[in-house]
Amino acid sequence: MSDGSSLSSPAPASLPLVGLFGFGAFGRLIATHLAAHCRIRVHDPLLQPGPVMPGVTATTLEGAAGCPIVILAVPVTRMQAVARSIAPHLPPHALVADVGSVKILPADILCRELPAHVRIIATHPLFGPQSARDGIAGHRIVLCPLRGTRPGPLAAFLRRTLGLEVIVTTPDAHDRDAAMAQGLTHLLAHILSEMGPMPERISTSSFALIRAAAAMVQNDAPEVSHAIAHLNPHARAVRRQFCAIAGRIAESDDAHGVSPFPDHAFG
Amino acid sequence: MSDGSSLSSPAPASLPLVGLFGFGAFGRLIATHLAAHCRIRVHDPLLQPGPVMPGVTATTLEGAAGCPIVILAVPVTRMQAVARSIAPHLPPHALVADVGSVKILPADILCRELPAHVRIIATHPLFGPQSARDGIAGHRIVLCPLRGTRPGPLAAFLRRTLGLEVIVTTPDAHDRDAAMAQGLTHLLAHILSEMGPMPERISTSSFALIRAAAAMVQNDAPEVSHAIAHLNPHARAVRRQFCAIAGRIAESDDAHGVSPFPDHAFG
Repeated sequence: MSDGSSLSSPAPASLPLVGLFGFGAFGRLIATHLAAHCRIRVHDPLLQPGPVMPGVTATTLEGAAGCPIVILAVPVTRMQAVARSIAPHLPPHALVADVGSVKILPADILCRELPAHVRIIATHPLFGPQSARDGIAGHRIVLCPLRGTRPGPLAAFLRRTLGLEVIVTTPDAHDRDAAMAQGLTHLLAHILSEMGPMPERISTSSFALIRAAAAMVQNDAPEVSHAIAHLNPHARAVRRQFCAIAGRIAESDDAHGVSPFPDHAFG
Repeated sequence: MSDGSSLSSPAPASLPLVGLFGFGAFGRLIATHLAAHCRIRVHDPLLQPGPVMPGVTATTLEGAAGCPIVILAVPVTRMQAVARSIAPHLPPHALVADVGSVKILPADILCRELPAHVRIIATHPLFGPQSARDGIAGHRIVLCPLRGTRPGPLAAFLRRTLGLEVIVTTPDAHDRDAAMAQGLTHLLAHILSEMGPMPERISTSSFALIRAAAAMVQNDAPEVSHAIAHLNPHARAVRRQFCAIAGRIAESDDAHGVSPFPDHAFG
């Protein structure tokens, strides 16, 4: 097989081999949703070689790296080490994809570390075990084609077979938007977690939505939170902008000497 | 009639008279949901006397204030003026309720301005035209009994007939919790509105919840936003705490010299 199009083949005998690195929360989500469409060879230091679940077998680093399609579901901070370790074992024209929450840094690492014959596509599924607990159909995935591959066949598989909405863009454009969407959500969750107990009964529908959003990311793996906050080169500017506006609002309170019982309240 | 219990009477001939002050977004919501259970006499400077909708008739200040039950759906900043103007016209043992988003200030005003024979209950429906656009059943309302009334009969009507969840508490306990729930929602909406365009495609389920929450309160009347931010004596402390934590996070970025490409990312 030479690209993602054969992933959609329905005949078990011809199911493509996919090497999966990492069997954390997201690696398991990938295995769950791809097992019906591929034979998955997963490598994770915590797994003993052997059957893991139907369609998924744990194997050595070399065994997983030798597959024609390789998915890296490892923390962004591990990406360089993993890329280096698999580089010698990738078959000619293998397709390598990561699934990290940021894209500039992994794209840079993969293009630098993987041999020239390897095709590379950086991806970011915009969902996780929490938001996709009722299924992944209808969710979105970002594709950043980096080297030697058209996104068409893989995009078609993700759209038609998995029901995902596919967004094709560049690592920089991804990280700019993600710095806002994910960066602000994590920042807000961080602030709320430090504010102490929240009111349970006297609340509103809108505040319930904010708390639900915070709860969704508070369950993220620490590596994911770290990548979103510190491994996206645009995240810091967004965080500083948010904090600067918050600071101006607090200062404006002071400057105007806002009292809870101002005279004009009794007009 | 002497309390809210007769509100639940099903016979049109015996429907109680309710005076409603204010026919803004929330006054209209009240009229819509009470019209089947009361004969409503509404007073609003913008309404010409006469029929408004089935069960609702616009009338003079004296006509609305002369009802045995009076609901004040006016901005908190107008509460003192309205309370003074209706005080001479309230019938003996009238029940007066406000529906403001804060409770300490209106409670103080009503107890000071209304004659001693009048019974007073401060309320805060924890919903609005946005969140209750599909109905009010299942939503919550806070009751703060202030003078000469037990919340029981009114609470029973709100629970059984309107399907609301009723929370009985004090104005101070209400404002402490509301400073967190409503205060933080409005602060966040304010900050987001100043941050400029938000990403539309590269987003997440959790960020979509935050944006939905902000959109819900960005449509609130300016008077409501003002009351939540500045007429709740606990709101400022919550806002300052939020901004202080945000500031510490920004400082921590600086102190640790966080780089988007730290050395340890290449472990």
